[in-house]
Amino acid sequence: MAEGACDGAPAPASSNGSLCGFESLEQLLQARLPPEELAQVQRLLYGWNAGRPVQALPLPLAAAAAAEAAKFDLQAYRFEAAPEQLRPPRLVRIGLIQHGIVAPTTAPFAEQRQAIFDRVRTLVDAAVAAGVQVLCLQEFWACPYFFCTRERGWCEFAESAEEGPSTRLCQELARRHNMVIVSPILERDEAHGGTIWNTAVVVGNNGNVIGKHRKNHVTRCGGFNESMYYMESDTGHPVFETSFGKIAVNICYGRHIPLNCLTFALNGAEVVFNPCCTLGGWAFESLWPIEARYAAAANSYYMCAINRVGTEAFPNAFTSGDGGPAHKELGPYFGSSYVAAPDGSRCPSLSRDRDGLLVAELDLNLCRQAEDRFNFRMCGRHDMYAELLARYVRPDFRPQVVRDPSLPAAPGSTA
Amino acid sequence: MAEGACDGAPAPASSNGSLCGFESLEQLLQARLPPEELAQVQRLLYGWNAGRPVQALPLPLAAAAAAEAAKFDLQAYRFEAAPEQLRPPRLVRIGLIQHGIVAPTTAPFAEQRQAIFDRVRTLVDAAVAAGVQVLCLQEFWACPYFFCTRERGWCEFAESAEEGPSTRLCQELARRHNMVIVSPILERDEAHGGTIWNTAVVVGNNGNVIGKHRKNHVTRCGGFNESMYYMESDTGHPVFETSFGKIAVNICYGRHIPLNCLTFALNGAEVVFNPCCTLGGWAFESLWPIEARYAAAANSYYMCAINRVGTEAFPNAFTSGDGGPAHKELGPYFGSSYVAAPDGSRCPSLSRDRDGLLVAELDLNLCRQAEDRFNFRMCGRHDMYAELLARYVRPDFRPQVVRDPSLPAAPGSTA
Repeated sequence: MAEGACDGAPAPASSNGSLCGFESLEQLLQARLPPEELAQVQRLLYGWNAGRPVQALPLPLAAAAAAEAAKFDLQAYRFEAAPEQLRPPRLVRIGLIQHGIVAPTTAPFAEQRQAIFDRVRTLVDAAVAAGVQVLCLQEFWACPYFFCTRERGWCEFAESAEEGPSTRLCQELARRHNMVIVSPILERDEAHGGTIWNTAVVVGNNGNVIGKHRKNHVTRCGGFNESMYYMESDTGHPVFETSFGKIAVNICYGRHIPLNCLTFALNGAEVVFNPCCTLGGWAFESLWPIEARYAAAANSYYMCAINRVGTEAFPNAFTSGDGGPAHKELGPYFGSSYVAAPDGSRCPSLSRDRDGLLVAELDLNLCRQAEDRFNFRMCGRHDMYAELLARYVRPDFRPQVVRDPSLPAAPGSTA
Repeated sequence: MAEGACDGAPAPASSNGSLCGFESLEQLLQARLPPEELAQVQRLLYGWNAGRPVQALPLPLAAAAAAEAAKFDLQAYRFEAAPEQLRPPRLVRIGLIQHGIVAPTTAPFAEQRQAIFDRVRTLVDAAVAAGVQVLCLQEFWACPYFFCTRERGWCEFAESAEEGPSTRLCQELARRHNMVIVSPILERDEAHGGTIWNTAVVVGNNGNVIGKHRKNHVTRCGGFNESMYYMESDTGHPVFETSFGKIAVNICYGRHIPLNCLTFALNGAEVVFNPCCTLGGWAFESLWPIEARYAAAANSYYMCAINRVGTEAFPNAFTSGDGGPAHKELGPYFGSSYVAAPDGSRCPSLSRDRDGLLVAELDLNLCRQAEDRFNFRMCGRHDMYAELLARYVRPDFRPQVVRDPSLPAAPGSTA
């Protein structure tokens, strides 16, 4: 989904034309704070004293050269776990790609898509150089975010999860580079009358489609009319057991739903990708740094938040249900992709306004270590909530309210 | 519960002897950043462009004078909602009190308790001057946090929820000041064989005990042996309908459990108090600023996080299950109490190392406004999760795992 709109707080003077005048929160703080104070801020914002701090991960020069040549942000970090006696470290190197659209939305659709394919190939080349084993692309990576328009013609971008052009490209790349690729697309389900879904296709490192997950919770806020285009998922909360670990995909708005985040953990996910289209307004940018961290810590998995960048202009004006005038642009999306770990730590964000590749080496052993430490699952009392929710969904559910008996009687009181 | 231990990142040089050398994250940033950059940081950390920014709330001089005289931190903020046509604003003024113990833990228990009572009376006087209508004290406010010791003698501090000394004091204050008071204590339940509980007593503004809530999820982490002292609650997730609004209490560790946070919302809470005893280590201080915010935004209520301050020294050394040497001190608790709003915004924190009173004027209309905006409840698909959890709690539950069929067969595979 796309959410909010950039309702700017006063922006600092800036000559680089970047979004709201700064590259990232991290860089802003780093430029101003003395080292000792920066260390305290990083401790509080990133949980960097939680077990082991997040370290920069050295990458081959080829990766840095590719980022330099193609002008995208490249950052790499390492999440370590404590040594164990009975298990070796279980390292997996993941990659998150964020990008803007390339051709204007007025270009022929095939051209728009091809331009994105070409750009993503360049980013994938850097991921290959960086040794990435599991790569996740952003939500609706192969098309503009057109759901704001409510126009039907854009549905042409929807494609088969099993054999559409995006899947075929990912299969080719996965096979060639021995890489698992998570590809979030707009799916056209021809086997069911051409129904459209918001779908993440998981392509295995042998180039086979392992399976797909459809978005569980449909965005119904702001002017973002995704509920006009597709329905709630029928695929549950699958965890995909790949060559490089058990992964799941929590698509965009699903990060706001704690039960959705929890269920991927109950099914055993160790890495959850969260591909998004999210704008700066409505507190969404300020919730961005905390939602993936909360989900990771509460559910003992790695949560990888990915957001697109740039502003997208459409041919016809549309309104956003906020009383404002009709407009043709949506954005800017604020990028800021990052990885949060089960021990409460996280790495810095990618740029707010540039394409980027974030590489992270994860020790999956940290998941069980965090769970064993915090005991959230063990103390979860899921039986109580199973019973509660079963009651809650009944039309005759009565909330548990204890009314102060000294209050005057109120008609319609729930006491 | 108390959690973690202060494993310090490098602390800035400081002569004031405060915890890790700085009063609060907010003051640290405020001292270093130019105004425009500070505005961006506040936007990202506090959601201050979400609807309306959080404003300072002017207080009567008597409140400030009391804080000055008794040397505690006093801050006050206003959370506004948009005007509605069919409902007037529903304003409630709440107060959160954080404090350290007063007498040493070697003093007679009655003396320790009386010293805390006296200190809290002083803080309550300021709350009265500030017009507070609903006041919440910290977890186990009337005694030291002794659960680290595993010694049984401290259980003397446990008291009746209905007629113990803490409740009697709160009743007196509530009646005199027309104030609802939430009083988190260690409860001794004489009607059930003297069983001990971690309980929040809710005293109405007429001085009557409206009811009580017992902590749902028992802390079982670190050296914090609460599970040695009391069991999981048998009181559900009650919402207390008071003269000033529908409130609930999510005690400490319960903030880590998303289902616990959700259920208070399903029962209609508009303000949830989260009284805690939490230390700086294990990323707990870095999760602190995000957990209440996530809970507030995801569940469309105000979430009020309260933590004690100071270090508590005990007569006998104890270990903390972390391999470290036996020690006699626990702390410092990092204070930093704050209020998070349903629109994703929050106010700054109280001090990290001083007693304090945080006053906030809340427009309860913001709860429904946020829910109507984000639609998280409507899109929650609780029926799906009721069914899922009912399956999950069965011993024969099988996680939903899709195994890459091109992987070599693995014994014990869940595919």
